[in-house]
Amino acid sequence: MAKHLTSRKDDYSKWYNELVVQADLAENSAVRGCMVIKPYGYAIWEKMQAELDRMFKETGHQNAYFPLFVPKSLFEAEEKNAEGFAKECAVVTHYRLQNDPDNAGKLRVDPEAKLEEELVVRPTSEAIIWNTYKGWIQSYRDLPILVNQWANVVRWEMRTRLFLRTAEFLWQEGHTAHATEQEAIQEAVQMNEVYADFAENFMAIPVIQGVKSESERFAGAVETYCIEALMQDGKALQAGTSHFLGQNFAEAFDVKYTTKEGKQEYVWATSWGVSTRLMGALIMTHSDDRGLVLPPNLAPIQVVIVPIYKGLDQLEEVSVKVQEIEKSLRNRGVSVRYDDRDTLRPGAKFAQHELQGVPLRIAIGARDIANNTVELARRDTLTKEVVSMDEISNLIPDLLKEIQMALFEKARNFRDEHITEVDSFDEFKNVLKNKGGFISAHWDGTPETENRIKELTKATIRCIPLNVKKEKGNCILTGSESNQRVLFAKAY
Amino acid sequence: MAKHLTSRKDDYSKWYNELVVQADLAENSAVRGCMVIKPYGYAIWEKMQAELDRMFKETGHQNAYFPLFVPKSLFEAEEKNAEGFAKECAVVTHYRLQNDPDNAGKLRVDPEAKLEEELVVRPTSEAIIWNTYKGWIQSYRDLPILVNQWANVVRWEMRTRLFLRTAEFLWQEGHTAHATEQEAIQEAVQMNEVYADFAENFMAIPVIQGVKSESERFAGAVETYCIEALMQDGKALQAGTSHFLGQNFAEAFDVKYTTKEGKQEYVWATSWGVSTRLMGALIMTHSDDRGLVLPPNLAPIQVVIVPIYKGLDQLEEVSVKVQEIEKSLRNRGVSVRYDDRDTLRPGAKFAQHELQGVPLRIAIGARDIANNTVELARRDTLTKEVVSMDEISNLIPDLLKEIQMALFEKARNFRDEHITEVDSFDEFKNVLKNKGGFISAHWDGTPETENRIKELTKATIRCIPLNVKKEKGNCILTGSESNQRVLFAKAY
Repeated sequence: MAKHLTSRKDDYSKWYNELVVQADLAENSAVRGCMVIKPYGYAIWEKMQAELDRMFKETGHQNAYFPLFVPKSLFEAEEKNAEGFAKECAVVTHYRLQNDPDNAGKLRVDPEAKLEEELVVRPTSEAIIWNTYKGWIQSYRDLPILVNQWANVVRWEMRTRLFLRTAEFLWQEGHTAHATEQEAIQEAVQMNEVYADFAENFMAIPVIQGVKSESERFAGAVETYCIEALMQDGKALQAGTSHFLGQNFAEAFDVKYTTKEGKQEYVWATSWGVSTRLMGALIMTHSDDRGLVLPPNLAPIQVVIVPIYKGLDQLEEVSVKVQEIEKSLRNRGVSVRYDDRDTLRPGAKFAQHELQGVPLRIAIGARDIANNTVELARRDTLTKEVVSMDEISNLIPDLLKEIQMALFEKARNFRDEHITEVDSFDEFKNVLKNKGGFISAHWDGTPETENRIKELTKATIRCIPLNVKKEKGNCILTGSESNQRVLFAKAY
Repeated sequence: MAKHLTSRKDDYSKWYNELVVQADLAENSAVRGCMVIKPYGYAIWEKMQAELDRMFKETGHQNAYFPLFVPKSLFEAEEKNAEGFAKECAVVTHYRLQNDPDNAGKLRVDPEAKLEEELVVRPTSEAIIWNTYKGWIQSYRDLPILVNQWANVVRWEMRTRLFLRTAEFLWQEGHTAHATEQEAIQEAVQMNEVYADFAENFMAIPVIQGVKSESERFAGAVETYCIEALMQDGKALQAGTSHFLGQNFAEAFDVKYTTKEGKQEYVWATSWGVSTRLMGALIMTHSDDRGLVLPPNLAPIQVVIVPIYKGLDQLEEVSVKVQEIEKSLRNRGVSVRYDDRDTLRPGAKFAQHELQGVPLRIAIGARDIANNTVELARRDTLTKEVVSMDEISNLIPDLLKEIQMALFEKARNFRDEHITEVDSFDEFKNVLKNKGGFISAHWDGTPETENRIKELTKATIRCIPLNVKKEKGNCILTGSESNQRVLFAKAY
């Protein structure tokens, strides 16, 4: 609780790791690369899920559930997708353990219980889902299919970090099927916009919408749309992706439909997902050296009330007042916790609630009751004020909205200050080294140049932004002609 | 849509399988024993989840998430639990696929990517969770831990049936840790009561609460509480279980806490779960030869409105009226669908909505508009009446409650008529053969007798009911003394 938290300036990466654990969000488990999401962290994820789920349903999607396992023969059907995920997948080969004859009390794989065909634990579900859609789609009347799945997936990453990159993670994956190319592209764009809306207006994380360069594209996609956020250390984080898959999966799984005119055509596809990685984005966008800072929309507890008292008589007097305030706040839809634990002093409670990012703290003592006031402290600005007890319940809902806005504006200002236009490779390297952030630069459009820049600087093309004006210029590395600036950054 | 549904009388098992598929609830997948839960089925499961989640939170539980994989060394730590699940578990042995040198375009397991320790795909999470709790619990102040997880689990069952028994299924598993034996028992009992409340008052499924005999107990439990339901074919279905685990897992994972008095004690545990198997119970409790019958609480669509029209002018006239009704029903919290598809005739729509168990159907045609009436049809009773258009919105919320109650009462009457007390083994076999249902009989309390009865009749002890009067008698098989009747049945 009162553990020291490394400052961001001293070691950003260490600060992040410590914060995730100390704020009780998640921890490493006994399984390499897999995390335990603790109740406080999971409560935040549940709030994200609920809002996203609402947004998906509002845009016409339904949830479903597909198997965890993908038989190897289906996994390898779409070649690029298979190539992209084969190197890091968990493979089930047996279906039974037996007593180990060489080790009393131990178990071993039963060699006679070998599967005829290996099963891959889904790293993503296009293969199993398109194999299923084959049975669902005959005619244009069966389209579109607008389905989403909330699930766990496994990618056997070698270097893992809590929330940011874990071998198992939780996510949602939308998988839609359409009669026309145009409709599928519209869907992919729409869902990327839903993600942007969600990130900005619910999580208070400003994002840039764009498309990925070919080498950063999802394995099996024709186009990958994305939202890119900027963390406080100047590194970018891909917060969500939406893929236009063309007819690649329809061809791989032979999914055709009969048009109104009676012709047989391959179906067009999209897929789109966000994951528990968003937890990492949330933490790194808003938090500070005292701990987590949570936008009120995502805070499991929006207001904590701490009694200041000597002796049980005073506590009781305070508690009576607190009950009124709690009730009145709950009626206004505010989530409140009364922290009347008698095992901790107020200072220790304050530190814990700061560490856990509770947006507002109310402290009430005997003097406050005499004065009909409370002390109201704001987590994001670390400011305090004395407020009339009569006004507190009316004040707080507005204040929570204000905090939500303020966090977004602060993050947006930081992000905007960290988009730098450069026109030479020297400048590029200089900004990358001394300032970080997004670097807006001309690129000749070739994977070779992109790779060379990555080798030289570790910066990658985060996206080719959408909705920006075209501008002629010259590639910072090769000098070749370019029609648009793209955004480079070092990235998580 | 217009496929023929086998009648329950002709072939109950076939009726069930056809119904699940034809009503668009679920289907088999390309992975042996794993199902695809289709959007309509998943929407029902989501309603169960939401209500259970609310009930868990109301009783002080929080959600969290633990890894999908259990390292073999943890899996084998609690001996009985390991023994119970080792025979049917999916085992991950490798973390990579590579191009198969003997088969162009195919992949194979990379022999160099063998895991040092095999990972078991969780069949249940006691092991991984108690290994985690070890780090969470030091003192009595850390107790109780009241955690639930929504997750997928895998049990490599050889004979599977949609929802009832699948290799992968969705469930929730509560895992709690307590300072005292009494508190843990109270928790296990409480959660079994939550399940009973949920089954009866939300799903309209009457259940009997009891404890399992030793041979039917969860592997690793000291006591297994359960709720048992009765299906229309006279077979029982275990709908939920809640286990008092004693200190078995605390001992296996060395989880001790310091008491107030400074002593070191092992922690007491419970676990409890319900799964997508409840979908099977739901279907088999209420449905009929026309298809699904859904209690209004669980119906994704509670009211469907079908227009009866000739030509677009009539359709438009009807649609104007329908919009008013829709709005007014939504304001009352009723979920409504207006089925104005022009690809199907009203009769075909009626059949589909019957098959899918929509509780109420409103039909409106030109004559209805002239008369200011609608035709209202009830799915559970298959009755119709003509109702004034002005009253319909007020009528429906009450009618939905009435249907919910009626379904429960109907199922309870059926269940009560199918509990038969017998006092001899001949009678036992006779009732089992000719009537089915629960058979209330004296048993001498030994696993030997229980097994012998199972061998002879395929009936098992479903539970030793709670809250019933003790009664002296003689075991139906051995004649030995007994203090209480227990419930036998053939079971799913």
